[in-house]
Amino acid sequence: MSDCPFCVKLADLSSVAADEMVWRFPESVALLGPWQRYTGYCILVSRRHACELSQLTVGGRHSFLDEMAQLARAIESAFAPRKMNYELLGNQVPHLHWHLFPRPHDDDDPLRPVWFAIDRAERDDAERTELRTGTLPRMEIIARLRTHLLRIAGGES
Amino acid sequence: MSDCPFCVKLADLSSVAADEMVWRFPESVALLGPWQRYTGYCILVSRRHACELSQLTVGGRHSFLDEMAQLARAIESAFAPRKMNYELLGNQVPHLHWHLFPRPHDDDDPLRPVWFAIDRAERDDAERTELRTGTLPRMEIIARLRTHLLRIAGGES
Repeated sequence: MSDCPFCVKLADLSSVAADEMVWRFPESVALLGPWQRYTGYCILVSRRHACELSQLTVGGRHSFLDEMAQLARAIESAFAPRKMNYELLGNQVPHLHWHLFPRPHDDDDPLRPVWFAIDRAERDDAERTELRTGTLPRMEIIARLRTHLLRIAGGES
Repeated sequence: MSDCPFCVKLADLSSVAADEMVWRFPESVALLGPWQRYTGYCILVSRRHACELSQLTVGGRHSFLDEMAQLARAIESAFAPRKMNYELLGNQVPHLHWHLFPRPHDDDDPLRPVWFAIDRAERDDAERTELRTGTLPRMEIIARLRTHLLRIAGGES
């Protein structure tokens, strides 16, 4: 759909920045998210334009959720977070996408969802810079995720 | 585990309040959540004590996620929300549980996650009462969910 930002992005994957593209699954594409204070945070975007899981076929849903689980496992293996957070919201952009947030052991606000910190970051330059900055360069984070994805999801990237 | 509140609750399902118990799936139990301003909001608790999806067997994970999808579909069928939000967090209670929030068409804060409204509700009596109060009595919400679950998930309740 021409007015859907994820459809526009997925229509030309070769133009996705190298420090954003993580993995091409059969049913979805994994992108490195902006908030790398949560080192390894990814957004998993369905290749199919649908706005609810219930709009997928049963087989399509199974594959999409398997890919979610594989990506989460790679994030866990690579960065050993205290806890994984999975969120499929779509309140602003309804095209199906999972936020997979690894919550680090030194999280500043460990008991609450990430959205409070992100809300502050969106209104404050210093907070934004801190939340965008991971413990590693983005290309290194992607390289580590791919090492684990190769094992977990097979040879495709 | 004796110090896990969900394990304690699931160990004696007969003691769960009638206006909280929605459905007994093979791998999980659906409970009506407190914040019924999001009419139909459910918490789907894994019967197995695990803290990450990656700790389930592949078959166990498939079943748990199928039950999540069935419950979400029942919520959608019963209450026709603007958007479904799925969240598996576990930052406070790690035992696997999905929050399934139907976002209503007259949501006061439709573009943001529910947690901002819930945070206000936890600090303000009037907001709390409003957020806990659905458009229907809790038993009626449960009855409507069960009608759809009977069709979607089969005869078991």
